[in-house]
Amino acid sequence: MKSQVNDSVYMAEALALARRGIYTTTPNPAVGCLLVRDGQVIGRGWHRRAGDHHAEINALRNAAELAGGDPADRSMWAEVCRGATCYVTLEPCSHTGRTGPCAEALVEAQVARVVYAMEDPNPQVAGDGFARLRAAGIQVEGPLLEEEALALNRGFVKRMTHGLPWVSCKLAMSLDGRTAMASGESRWVTGRRAREDVQRLRASSCAIVTGVDTVLMDQASLTVRGGDWPEAPADGDIRQPLRVVLDSGGRLTPDCLLVQQPSAVLLVHTREVDASGWPEHVEHLVLAEREGGVSLQLLLRELAKRGCNQVLVEAGAKVAGSFLRLGFLDEIILYMAPKLLGNRARGLFELPIDAMSAQLPLDIKDIRAVGQDWRITAVPDFDS
Amino acid sequence: MKSQVNDSVYMAEALALARRGIYTTTPNPAVGCLLVRDGQVIGRGWHRRAGDHHAEINALRNAAELAGGDPADRSMWAEVCRGATCYVTLEPCSHTGRTGPCAEALVEAQVARVVYAMEDPNPQVAGDGFARLRAAGIQVEGPLLEEEALALNRGFVKRMTHGLPWVSCKLAMSLDGRTAMASGESRWVTGRRAREDVQRLRASSCAIVTGVDTVLMDQASLTVRGGDWPEAPADGDIRQPLRVVLDSGGRLTPDCLLVQQPSAVLLVHTREVDASGWPEHVEHLVLAEREGGVSLQLLLRELAKRGCNQVLVEAGAKVAGSFLRLGFLDEIILYMAPKLLGNRARGLFELPIDAMSAQLPLDIKDIRAVGQDWRITAVPDFDS
Repeated sequence: MKSQVNDSVYMAEALALARRGIYTTTPNPAVGCLLVRDGQVIGRGWHRRAGDHHAEINALRNAAELAGGDPADRSMWAEVCRGATCYVTLEPCSHTGRTGPCAEALVEAQVARVVYAMEDPNPQVAGDGFARLRAAGIQVEGPLLEEEALALNRGFVKRMTHGLPWVSCKLAMSLDGRTAMASGESRWVTGRRAREDVQRLRASSCAIVTGVDTVLMDQASLTVRGGDWPEAPADGDIRQPLRVVLDSGGRLTPDCLLVQQPSAVLLVHTREVDASGWPEHVEHLVLAEREGGVSLQLLLRELAKRGCNQVLVEAGAKVAGSFLRLGFLDEIILYMAPKLLGNRARGLFELPIDAMSAQLPLDIKDIRAVGQDWRITAVPDFDS
Repeated sequence: MKSQVNDSVYMAEALALARRGIYTTTPNPAVGCLLVRDGQVIGRGWHRRAGDHHAEINALRNAAELAGGDPADRSMWAEVCRGATCYVTLEPCSHTGRTGPCAEALVEAQVARVVYAMEDPNPQVAGDGFARLRAAGIQVEGPLLEEEALALNRGFVKRMTHGLPWVSCKLAMSLDGRTAMASGESRWVTGRRAREDVQRLRASSCAIVTGVDTVLMDQASLTVRGGDWPEAPADGDIRQPLRVVLDSGGRLTPDCLLVQQPSAVLLVHTREVDASGWPEHVEHLVLAEREGGVSLQLLLRELAKRGCNQVLVEAGAKVAGSFLRLGFLDEIILYMAPKLLGNRARGLFELPIDAMSAQLPLDIKDIRAVGQDWRITAVPDFDS
């Protein structure tokens, strides 16, 4: 019995499995896989991190193990999975993976049917996995729950299709749109629960971009602190995002708190600086644009080349405003605190708007309470 | 059968009847009344406007009429209502009303029981109505749904208990807390549905307070436009709020749009101005405080003396900030539009805050979508 309803239920579970990887798989996508035979789930797998087994292989290994066999025994895979349906959230690869191409493994395991959520987003290879499966007589169906699958790997998809990472900008503001005192004092605009939520954002980001003023003023470290929020990955699984500081003039010094933290730092300048005296985890990069500032476009392309799927901008009004007006923000995440800071305090985005007709429309996707604060997720709507 | 559940249901209907008067009854409170006998509603009444019958009288008249009699025939009231229960949202008066005190009318009608939602908020007369009823052997029970009844007449209650009106401040802002361009241009920050909602706020207000800059810059008329919103009162029932302009220096001239509209205007100055050349519906008042500005406290007391229960502040950041920091705002109503106007645009409240410790906490009561915009209702929380 292979009803559409059951297919959706199984795919939803495969997506939930995939989601377990969101803090660890990058530069790879998060993928989940479910093997079902005679209405029974016989194997589950998800991709944990680059270099580890892909989701399909983990599901096949799990099926062998649950049947009392050796997970690595490929003949056992066919014994257990012959005639099964494989639900997988991304098109199986035909050319990569430590245990060989996943499509090949599914062919060997003699599954009868593969239901997928989305194609491989890389236009160069999309369809190859399906072709290999079909050539072996396996029935291939999909896409199913494609929107959910695309959302889960939106960073990976954007990097594959545009050569750019997905860029979110996080800001914490008062109800009157203020992020800090005129002096720069900003601890704390939002409450504990909102700050925990920011840890989640950082943990699922490959890089965090900020300005030198924020680093100097806030003594920000921009690291992910383990265990600060429910369902945080285990300490050993926490991946510290690359910390990128826009420091055109080379004002940062090695003694700042951010540099004292040992995870990787990329300092972006507009001209060569003397890199001596800096610890090994700090890299200097020159990325100037004609107008004299750091080229954000070159920076994002560079981050994509380094495998960054998701980038989080955590900066002041100037840097946040630059990303926004250049059209580089895919999403704005505002934490709005129930308080007023008044007109002397610092604003949200520096934007060159002098007439109502030049206003920047937003599409508000979500508003919800996060502890005492409110989180607003919005997307710039340049077309409207 | 007199269950608590039924009492609540009948009182809820009485409150719904009372609500029909919110645009018209002031300076009187909105009151509703339901007469129930043998599980049947036999009469309904509500107070429409000062000078008209009170709710109880209207309910008794309605009961007589439904029974085929003359509404004004008081002997008919007893014939129809003997032994009934009267649900009334406010303690019946013992001393006022065109048709004599309502408590007396209920005694004459020989009702057996009176269930009330709230006492008379005037401490000088609270309880007198109940005493009269009890003296006649009528069972008096309450308060029931008191919180709802107090909310319905919060302006009347505040005026009776504090000698001040309930003051709401309405502002329309972008997501980044901006109300207008630096030039003052502000049409329109919010959409049609939000502007309709503002018509409701105006229609339920007794006075609207603004600053001279807003009048001059926006060419604002601050009138209620009939029929602009669903369930608007009929044109003849629309009560134009008193339009109060803070004009310390006497900068307003008779040719402005606001003055061209015929409903009453109160211009508040800090020194005597030449009142010649102004139309009759414009009044000039001098209310200076020692520091040189208009005394907002004296203004609010003056408005309360004139019977204003609810005052709406619709002004720029300076006037709104003054009301806020002096503690005169009972409620802030923000319409938040899904757009960004940028840091050059005008802010929400001028407040003398230079340190995070001086932030002004708010208690957010409600956030809801109004068309394309969001309405946030908040209360200043000076104690936290």
